[in-house]
Amino acid sequence: MTFPQMDETHDPARSSWVGGADGHPDFPVQNLPYGIFAPFGGEVRAGVAIGDWIWDLKGAAKAGLLPEKAAAALGGSTLNALMALPAQDRAALRRRLSDLLSDATQRAVIEPLLHRAADCEMHLPAAIGDYTDFYVGIHHATNIGKLFRPDNPLLPNYKYVPIGYHGRASSIRPSGVPVVRPSGQRKAPDADAPTVGPSQRLDYELELGIWIGAGNALGDTVPIGEAVDHIAGFCLLNDWSARDFQAWEYVPLGPFLAKNFHSTISPWVVTAEAMAPFRIAQPARPEGDPQPLPYLWDEDDQARGALSVDLEVTLSSAAMRERGLAPLRLSHGPASSMYWTAQQIVTHHASNGCNLNPGDLLGTGTLSAATRDGYGSLMELTEGGKVRISLPTGEERAFLEDGDELALKAVAKADGYVSIGFGECRAVIEPAR
Amino acid sequence: MTFPQMDETHDPARSSWVGGADGHPDFPVQNLPYGIFAPFGGEVRAGVAIGDWIWDLKGAAKAGLLPEKAAAALGGSTLNALMALPAQDRAALRRRLSDLLSDATQRAVIEPLLHRAADCEMHLPAAIGDYTDFYVGIHHATNIGKLFRPDNPLLPNYKYVPIGYHGRASSIRPSGVPVVRPSGQRKAPDADAPTVGPSQRLDYELELGIWIGAGNALGDTVPIGEAVDHIAGFCLLNDWSARDFQAWEYVPLGPFLAKNFHSTISPWVVTAEAMAPFRIAQPARPEGDPQPLPYLWDEDDQARGALSVDLEVTLSSAAMRERGLAPLRLSHGPASSMYWTAQQIVTHHASNGCNLNPGDLLGTGTLSAATRDGYGSLMELTEGGKVRISLPTGEERAFLEDGDELALKAVAKADGYVSIGFGECRAVIEPAR
Repeated sequence: MTFPQMDETHDPARSSWVGGADGHPDFPVQNLPYGIFAPFGGEVRAGVAIGDWIWDLKGAAKAGLLPEKAAAALGGSTLNALMALPAQDRAALRRRLSDLLSDATQRAVIEPLLHRAADCEMHLPAAIGDYTDFYVGIHHATNIGKLFRPDNPLLPNYKYVPIGYHGRASSIRPSGVPVVRPSGQRKAPDADAPTVGPSQRLDYELELGIWIGAGNALGDTVPIGEAVDHIAGFCLLNDWSARDFQAWEYVPLGPFLAKNFHSTISPWVVTAEAMAPFRIAQPARPEGDPQPLPYLWDEDDQARGALSVDLEVTLSSAAMRERGLAPLRLSHGPASSMYWTAQQIVTHHASNGCNLNPGDLLGTGTLSAATRDGYGSLMELTEGGKVRISLPTGEERAFLEDGDELALKAVAKADGYVSIGFGECRAVIEPAR
Repeated sequence: MTFPQMDETHDPARSSWVGGADGHPDFPVQNLPYGIFAPFGGEVRAGVAIGDWIWDLKGAAKAGLLPEKAAAALGGSTLNALMALPAQDRAALRRRLSDLLSDATQRAVIEPLLHRAADCEMHLPAAIGDYTDFYVGIHHATNIGKLFRPDNPLLPNYKYVPIGYHGRASSIRPSGVPVVRPSGQRKAPDADAPTVGPSQRLDYELELGIWIGAGNALGDTVPIGEAVDHIAGFCLLNDWSARDFQAWEYVPLGPFLAKNFHSTISPWVVTAEAMAPFRIAQPARPEGDPQPLPYLWDEDDQARGALSVDLEVTLSSAAMRERGLAPLRLSHGPASSMYWTAQQIVTHHASNGCNLNPGDLLGTGTLSAATRDGYGSLMELTEGGKVRISLPTGEERAFLEDGDELALKAVAKADGYVSIGFGECRAVIEPAR
């Protein structure tokens, strides 16, 4: 397996002439994530984030600043064509962007193409053909399983199958779009029949998203040794969940209306190339766990297939924001709880010949750390709503209330390298309609 | 609820000047389904089926023969824009087409735009944004449930919730595209661990597909009284299923690789307007079944919301075709086993604010009749593979073998009206790669 290589773009000494880019918590010149943006009232187009600015890549292509193949892929209003490019072409674009942004002689040419990010609207980065959500966070699967089956939380297939299910592509929205509290059926354990109304157990789920780059034809598979070539990048994903609907509807075919009313993603595609320094070994399987089946097993993948990413979730109620209080950190921890790597997820998904396409989105499933301070959902943090969380205003939360704003954060870190962030993944809960 | 009205287009006395259209089992002038086709080597465009011919609607629009709004929606290579039109515009197009095809003075103008269907390739009728599969065939749900829970086949939510789950949009193919036998994980009940290989329990599922017309915005719902306005038409759907993969992978999040390797649809959209004469009362719920919750209940829907459609499944093995033997009918029966109407399915899907879009496809789930001669899958017909089916060659089948061709058929029937068919939904099983 050939992971994206490190080169001068990852050099921690590299500095950008764009003001505020050096030391930026998310978007230093070592990151260079792609997104789709529009200056307010302006055309929707591709851009790259640098500090608090967005560089218009359609304009850059037009000005002849970019490699030919990448330029040809940057004309539209989605990144699908860029994602579909072979890895070497994506890497060539990255090197060019990094060179131009760190070469002060280019300032006069590029500056007119920079837009202040605060003045732009972010769109979905791709036309998402299909969205699949996995369940590879083993601590989350264990925590949720315990609520149903205290003695046997993980089902027998969990350590053989990267469990996943199809989600709804149409209701994925970029960070910032409010979430309308869904209505639906729920049945109290002691009730004879269900009732209908706004969800009383609205929850979030902290996930990473995986953007598919090159696809595979229907009937073909993606061998594990090639899986990394099919991954264009990563984002944050909040898989909003109505736990009351979920408990009632999910047998026998899985979650449906409990999940498909809205999913929020961070709008920047942190590229596979940018993540090169942040690859780490997949944690060893606990003693007694089965060896992955051969089609999911690759030594390089075990050695470098996991991601060194720190995750964080914060909550601020409407009252907290009114009083100017800082958001409350609900959890934080490493994304190292993935029982399967992103590559294993991709290979498994295509193992039956299912065709993946550029711009498809795969969710990892909730990434909870091993201990409570890293749990990735309220279902886990409040033990199904039993243990309430205190906010600095004196308010309490079992699940999300109207007006709550939830934000996910991710930072990739490695000794000797400049940390890069994923940008915003936040939304406010609006009352049911 | 205002179902599409009957008008002169449904007149059984109406006759077409197109040779062979009158009396055609699928496509008499009373049907007029839309599809996307290409004459071999020609441009992909919209057409309408009439007898054994396809009338090029892009050409008709260009020639000024069609109503303005419909003409504007017929320029592309999908039917999404046509599906999105308000019902009255779709009805106006249908009346115009019916008038022109039954008026012999139009022959000279239209004939150059007719293509022999046998010389054309059919494509998917729409860019399918999202595909959802339901489970509303109560006899199927009961039969499958019995295999797992003999005493309690239907789960407690079944009679309250139109159970559904998201499927894979990218692997839907029109009739005729071969199905590659998928490989995957399966575990024998007495085995300690799973193995990987080509499915040994490959099955079909007989379903109807529902094409979404007008959509709803994210956060909005589709009230049951308006649901029919969101349905553009119907097709046949074969939800190919690998039962061995399904049994191993499906807990806790539902079917995934067991289903997403390929789904086959009939390529013609039988419009909601064409189905007007074939609407019947929803069968009364058995005594003791709960009344549907208010958001799913509409008196008109109960009175006219079901469909009078006869379904049939045939199988021919490679050896049967070599010997020129007729396909074997595996099952036949009415589509009246839907516990929920198409309108209830649409309303439920959007009840949490999930946004449906024009060209989305919803499957009903397997439509088995009450008795064995109408079972809609091999899983039911062979009782999980235990009772083998004899073919006229002396071959036997528990599940599908390589080279088998499976075909679904549907005909809408009503006293005093001309029957209309759904066209072909067939595919051959190719060996695993």
